[in-house]
Amino acid sequence: MNVHLNGSLPLHAKLAWGAPTARERGPILLSGAQANAIGAYAGNYAPYRAMAVATGALDAGHRPDLSATHPVAEIGPFDTWVRPFATMDKFGHRVAEDFAEERATGFDIRPTIAVARGELRFPEILEALSAGRIKADGRVLHHDGSIHVTKIAIEPVWHLPSLAARIGVKQCALRTALVEQSGGMYPAICTRPDIELFLPPIGGTSIYLFGDPARLGSAALVTCRIHDECNGSDVFGSDMCTCRPYLSFGIEACIQGAQQGGIGILSYNRKEGRSLGEVVKYLVYNARPRAACGDREEDYFARTRAVAGVEDMRFQSMATDPLLWLGVRKIDRWASMSNLKSDALRRAGIEIGEHLVIPDDLVPQNARVEIGAKKTSGYFF
Amino acid sequence: MNVHLNGSLPLHAKLAWGAPTARERGPILLSGAQANAIGAYAGNYAPYRAMAVATGALDAGHRPDLSATHPVAEIGPFDTWVRPFATMDKFGHRVAEDFAEERATGFDIRPTIAVARGELRFPEILEALSAGRIKADGRVLHHDGSIHVTKIAIEPVWHLPSLAARIGVKQCALRTALVEQSGGMYPAICTRPDIELFLPPIGGTSIYLFGDPARLGSAALVTCRIHDECNGSDVFGSDMCTCRPYLSFGIEACIQGAQQGGIGILSYNRKEGRSLGEVVKYLVYNARPRAACGDREEDYFARTRAVAGVEDMRFQSMATDPLLWLGVRKIDRWASMSNLKSDALRRAGIEIGEHLVIPDDLVPQNARVEIGAKKTSGYFF
Repeated sequence: MNVHLNGSLPLHAKLAWGAPTARERGPILLSGAQANAIGAYAGNYAPYRAMAVATGALDAGHRPDLSATHPVAEIGPFDTWVRPFATMDKFGHRVAEDFAEERATGFDIRPTIAVARGELRFPEILEALSAGRIKADGRVLHHDGSIHVTKIAIEPVWHLPSLAARIGVKQCALRTALVEQSGGMYPAICTRPDIELFLPPIGGTSIYLFGDPARLGSAALVTCRIHDECNGSDVFGSDMCTCRPYLSFGIEACIQGAQQGGIGILSYNRKEGRSLGEVVKYLVYNARPRAACGDREEDYFARTRAVAGVEDMRFQSMATDPLLWLGVRKIDRWASMSNLKSDALRRAGIEIGEHLVIPDDLVPQNARVEIGAKKTSGYFF
Repeated sequence: MNVHLNGSLPLHAKLAWGAPTARERGPILLSGAQANAIGAYAGNYAPYRAMAVATGALDAGHRPDLSATHPVAEIGPFDTWVRPFATMDKFGHRVAEDFAEERATGFDIRPTIAVARGELRFPEILEALSAGRIKADGRVLHHDGSIHVTKIAIEPVWHLPSLAARIGVKQCALRTALVEQSGGMYPAICTRPDIELFLPPIGGTSIYLFGDPARLGSAALVTCRIHDECNGSDVFGSDMCTCRPYLSFGIEACIQGAQQGGIGILSYNRKEGRSLGEVVKYLVYNARPRAACGDREEDYFARTRAVAGVEDMRFQSMATDPLLWLGVRKIDRWASMSNLKSDALRRAGIEIGEHLVIPDDLVPQNARVEIGAKKTSGYFF
C-alpha cells in the first residue's frame, strides 16, 4: 500500500500521507502515469464537466489560472495536524504555492480547499439584534446586522487506509464495498490497492469562521456547531425538524463567542437526511403519520430503518477532521444535542466544555416528535 | 442501443424509455444479469452506504419496505409526458405500485422521486406578512405565517440518448467524456453502449409546490422560479449575490399565485456555483477584488473562465424536465432574470408570460457587481 516506499517512482508521485509539509508529502495526482489518487476534483460535478467538454464549452486540457486565488487567511500548520487525516487534504488550500513548479510543467494539481471572506445577512440574527438578544460590535457583527466571516470550502479527499482504520474495518472490506455499493464506480479502488487516495463524488464541508482566524490554534475561547445539511429546513424552513433553528442558534452562539475574543466555527457537512438523501427522507416522512398508531416517538427511527435499512449513515468520526485542521483541541461552547457528534469529537481527542442547549421556544411544534425520539434513543448527554 | 428490441431478454429487463406507462416501459434495474442502468440510487451518498455495509450497520441485501410511503398527491400522467425525459424517470414516484410484483420477487427497484407534504416557516415571508405585503388566507399561507407546500425530491436518472440529443452532441462523445472527465468513473458507460440509463452521483431537484397539486396540468395560473443552489446565500445569507433574495422573492410570488387559485412551483436544483462547485466559487471570489483594476463588472465572468475554464456548466436545458413532468405548458408569472433559463424553457415548448422583476431594495449592496455583470453580458430579456 505504501507508494512512498517504492523508490523507483519519480519524486512527484511519492505520497507520504502523514508528512509535515506538502513538499515532503507530495502532490495529489489524479491522472497520468504517476497517478496516486482515484476520482475527480469536485467529483459530484464531474458529470457536468463531462457535458461541458462534450459540447466544446470547456477545453479538456484547461488548467486553472490560480493567480490571486490564495486564501484570505493562513490556516495552519497546527500541532493537531499530526493526526492522520482521513477525509481531507490538510494542504489542499496551498497547492498554488506548494506545487507551483509541478503546475507550471503541466501537472493538473488543483486546490481542494478555498478560503474566502464574506459578509452574511441572516434573518434570525437581524431579529436577535433588534430584540436585543445580541449586540453589534462593529467587527464580528456590524451595526447594520451583517456578520463578518471567513468562509472555507473543503472538498473530500479520502485516505483509504486512514478512513478504514477510523471506522474500524479492514481496508479491503471498505474498498470492496465502495465499488459494490455504488454499482461499480471506480473499479480501480479494488484493482489498484497501491493507490491510497480517493476523491469521492460527494459533497464536502463548508466552514464559516466568526472572529479573527489568527486566533485559531491559540487558547482563545472556541464556540462550535457541526451542522449536517437539511436542505428542507436550512433553506426552506420546514417545520418537521429543528435543523434551521439549531443552525441559527449555532450562528448566534458563534457570534457571541467571537465577540468575547474567541473564535466561532460553524462546520456544515453535505449529509442530507443523515446521508440517506432526500428521497428516502420524504418516504419516511410519508410513512410516519400513516403508521397504524400515528406518528410516535418510538417509531421515528424504526420507520427510517424499514425504508433505508439503517438509521444513520453520517459517520460522525469523519466530521472531526475539519476541526483538527483548524487547530481545535477543545470546544469551550458546544451548540449541539447530538451524542454521535460529541462522542466522535472526544474520540478524536477534542475536549468539550459547556453544552449550549437550544431554548424550547425555538423548537417548532411539528418537530417535537423528532426531538422526543432523539431524547428517547439516548441523544443528549 | 435499443434493449427493448432484443426479444430474447425477459420482460422485466426490456426498456422502452418513451412508453406511456411504467409497465410498458419496464423497471429500471441497476444490478443483476438483466441490469439496464448504470450507477446507484442516491449515487452521491453511495460512498456512505459503502461504509455502512463495510461496518455491518447496513445489510447489503436490504430491500426498502415501501409500505405507506406513496406520494401524498398524484402527479401525472400529463400530455407533456410525451416529450422524452432526459434527466429523470417520470414514473419514479410510483415504483411501489407499478413494480410490486418484481419487488416482491426480490428485484431491487427503488423510488427516485418522493412526494410529501410540509409546512414551511420562512423568515422573509413572516416579514412580508407583518409588513402587509402578503396576506394569510388560511390555506396556502396560515395566519401564524406557516406556508403549506407539497415537497418533491427527484433523483437524477439520465437517459443518455435523450441527454446527448438535448445538449446537441453525439452520444458516444457524451459517454466518453463522462468516463474521462470523472477519472474513470463507471467504465461501463463506454463498454456497455447497449445500456441507455445512468444514475449519476450528483444532486437532483427539490420541488416546492404551492397551492392544490390537483391543479397541475390544468389551465390554472402558474407561477414559477427555477433556482440553482447557492448554499452560501440560500442558507447563510452571503451578500455577494442575489440568490436568497431571489429565492424569497420567488416563494412570495408562488404564494400569491397559489392564493389566486393557481399553482406555484419552486424548482431547486443542486448546481452549486453554476455546477462548478464551492471551491471554484471561492477561488473566484478571491481573485475578483484582487485584480489590478478592482472588482469590475466586465471581469466577473472572465475571472470565472480563468479559474474554471468555463463560465457556467448548469445546462439549463436539463431544468425543463421537472416542469414538463408537472404538466407545465405555460408559466404565467416567471420569477427569474436568467435568459439561459427562459431560453431553455421556450426551446422545451414552455411559454413564458409575465416576467416578475425583483425590487431593487431586495438586492444587497455587494451583489451589484454580479447583477451588473449579468446585465452587461445579456442576462435579462
